[in-house]
Amino acid sequence: MNVTPHSHDHIVKSYDEELERLTGELQRMGKLALAQLAAAVDAVIERDSHAASKIVHNDRTIDALEHEVSHDVVRLLALRQPMARDLREILAALRIATDIERIGDYAANVAKRSIVLNQSKPVQLVAALPRLARLAQSLAEDVLDAYRNYDADKALDAWARDEELDEQYTGLFRELLTYMMEDPRNITPCTHLLFMAKNLERIGDHATNIAENVYFLVHGTQIAQARRKGDTTSVLPIDDPR
Amino acid sequence: MNVTPHSHDHIVKSYDEELERLTGELQRMGKLALAQLAAAVDAVIERDSHAASKIVHNDRTIDALEHEVSHDVVRLLALRQPMARDLREILAALRIATDIERIGDYAANVAKRSIVLNQSKPVQLVAALPRLARLAQSLAEDVLDAYRNYDADKALDAWARDEELDEQYTGLFRELLTYMMEDPRNITPCTHLLFMAKNLERIGDHATNIAENVYFLVHGTQIAQARRKGDTTSVLPIDDPR
Repeated sequence: MNVTPHSHDHIVKSYDEELERLTGELQRMGKLALAQLAAAVDAVIERDSHAASKIVHNDRTIDALEHEVSHDVVRLLALRQPMARDLREILAALRIATDIERIGDYAANVAKRSIVLNQSKPVQLVAALPRLARLAQSLAEDVLDAYRNYDADKALDAWARDEELDEQYTGLFRELLTYMMEDPRNITPCTHLLFMAKNLERIGDHATNIAENVYFLVHGTQIAQARRKGDTTSVLPIDDPR
Repeated sequence: MNVTPHSHDHIVKSYDEELERLTGELQRMGKLALAQLAAAVDAVIERDSHAASKIVHNDRTIDALEHEVSHDVVRLLALRQPMARDLREILAALRIATDIERIGDYAANVAKRSIVLNQSKPVQLVAALPRLARLAQSLAEDVLDAYRNYDADKALDAWARDEELDEQYTGLFRELLTYMMEDPRNITPCTHLLFMAKNLERIGDHATNIAENVYFLVHGTQIAQARRKGDTTSVLPIDDPR
């Protein structure tokens, strides 16, 4: 820890190179999380439990990358002792890594539940899930793009679109309840679908967190408007689920 | 940012004092989150929507404290440029603050859903929720104690007990499904109960995260055993929900 970096310049990279390595790790994490999400949705549609198991297993790679990021952040802070903007950049990377790791977790959860779902006959409403997933995925993609390009406008745009995801989720939630009421045999599979939909809704929340971090990184201020976040099903009237 | 702390010693606190301030903020956050959780469970039992609304509103205080912690961490890193163990301590505080903030969020979510639940006739299985909540609360309390006292053994013990919470949650999940199948009028309220139970299960996961951070802080190594974390309902057989 007490090594002075400049004492052996031939092996020590420049600060910019180290930072680049860090953001490179984050981009790799992001790509992996997005690929996991896409694969999870495919596994749901194709009722492919084998693919789903692989997705659950692969989640470790993202977790390992998060550990690497965390390790690199500690090293950068200790050796480089960055100030102001550099410090902000490094701490943003740490936060964004956590959000990407959570997105990966939720993708793996979707895959895990799809394995159980495949044990029962196909449920019609599975079709609504990919639509929700595509929106979640596009939000996650956009905020990671925004992060790579320091594009606060793109981050803000994705941040605002999370509301659309919440609305779609609420619609699906209501539909699933109706379906459960129609036939008690739908209750267990639809409960799993409810949780899968909830996972996708949560991915949107983490994309929103990333957007907020990107915005702060670029402008040094928080996104101004306070928007109520997330799940609106918790305020749905009980007696009229439609 | 470029002020040298020692240039005006009369107003600048010692590093230890600043660190104490930081951990003090975390303890305050922790106490608040625990109080919110206890109040949320009371609101559920007593069907007190007014109290529930207050809990939802109070969640801001925890969010504000997390921002303060985050701000203090950046200041400490920039001004003090801590090394090794001090750095580890500060980054642990940052992580633990995030977990406490999430615990507060989940408590507020329980309160929010209870308001909807009160719109329907009382559901019998509400009684199982406080048991789950008590366990979640005791885990959260223990890890915060462990953090205050650098007690890795206590952290490890709480970490292991999360499995009990997961089992209780899985049991409740199955019970709720059965209840929904018995009477379709139970479907909507029980769905809300499912999500409330899930919130409590997630609180256990965040307590587990805190335990891992405390353990690492004390020993400098990760908790060794890999335990599969969290929700086991995703692998429940579909055709036999009991």
